[in-house]
Amino acid sequence: MSTGDRLRKQIEFILEIDKLKQIFRQSRITDGTREENDAEHSWHLAMMAILLAEYANDSNINIQKVLKMILIHDIVEIDAGDTFIYDIEYNESKSQREQKAAKRIFGILPPDQEIEFRELWEEFEARNTSEAKFAAAMDRLQPSLLNFKTEGHTWKKFGIKYNRVLQKNEHINEGSQVLWGYFSELLNECLSKGYIIDDN
Amino acid sequence: MSTGDRLRKQIEFILEIDKLKQIFRQSRITDGTREENDAEHSWHLAMMAILLAEYANDSNINIQKVLKMILIHDIVEIDAGDTFIYDIEYNESKSQREQKAAKRIFGILPPDQEIEFRELWEEFEARNTSEAKFAAAMDRLQPSLLNFKTEGHTWKKFGIKYNRVLQKNEHINEGSQVLWGYFSELLNECLSKGYIIDDN
Repeated sequence: MSTGDRLRKQIEFILEIDKLKQIFRQSRITDGTREENDAEHSWHLAMMAILLAEYANDSNINIQKVLKMILIHDIVEIDAGDTFIYDIEYNESKSQREQKAAKRIFGILPPDQEIEFRELWEEFEARNTSEAKFAAAMDRLQPSLLNFKTEGHTWKKFGIKYNRVLQKNEHINEGSQVLWGYFSELLNECLSKGYIIDDN
Repeated sequence: MSTGDRLRKQIEFILEIDKLKQIFRQSRITDGTREENDAEHSWHLAMMAILLAEYANDSNINIQKVLKMILIHDIVEIDAGDTFIYDIEYNESKSQREQKAAKRIFGILPPDQEIEFRELWEEFEARNTSEAKFAAAMDRLQPSLLNFKTEGHTWKKFGIKYNRVLQKNEHINEGSQVLWGYFSELLNECLSKGYIIDDN
């Protein structure tokens, strides 16, 4: 492949992933005015990873890999859409929808970068490595921070109760025990403020 | 500082920078429906840096540093606002506004991270290192890609002509001669398609 052909594929991919800015999530941004999109969510997680890396359970974590993983982890949602973690039915078809999306979207890239991106995304999804576990911890902690600032907007909207949130976010502990401790305290504060329904 | 105090400052900063999602730029996203915000812009530049690092003039570039620089480079705009590169008057007060913003916003962080972020941001602004030059090249190339996809939306809106765009984006060459070559071709294509006014 000539440099020109290679660069054209890379630019085509760069323009394609601009669509991530129009994939909206259930969380609202902190001022409460609108839902957050996947592109700004990914940026926010990357910032969190830089700032909170010191709390990773694995002190030898490769932060560059974490950042790459976080930056690309939602790209498949351009085709597959955002799957709300508390939506049981839609989660059943999640893997199939996202695999198809990965094939099309990463397939725009030159072969070596397609493989790199595919592998990073699959590693993130599998959560077997320190980097994937820490990246997943960021992905779980951030929506709860937004819920805290918007007085439980998403939890209230969908009637999500305390124990369900606690259970669905246990991954945080695999990435960072310190942040899991913080998360547990934050959730108790949300409970005491009435942002989330107590089902104890 | 106890771990609890340190983490509280970091979380406060993480919540504060959520405001970057409401700082809008002049460029429109590729579907042309709305302006792009700084958070999604920063994510897009980070993706570009990962994909295009091979074209950096300096083949030993530290990509992790480039990513950090890109992810934080617009945070000062939470207070200082976005300064359109073709706005002469507003650019005169840019440095003063942004210095003040850096002091307040990075000042939320624990001292060591405040220093790290401040230094990364200043390095980006000064454009003296390979990493800063390459990060700046991404920051210049991306709006032109969006203009290309939106048929010159921003150039037309403000009557920005060909030679001004060429001159204002010369930094691309300092970061990557290959991408400068691509940019020059892209601009010629925009010219031939009538997306930008010919002042030759």
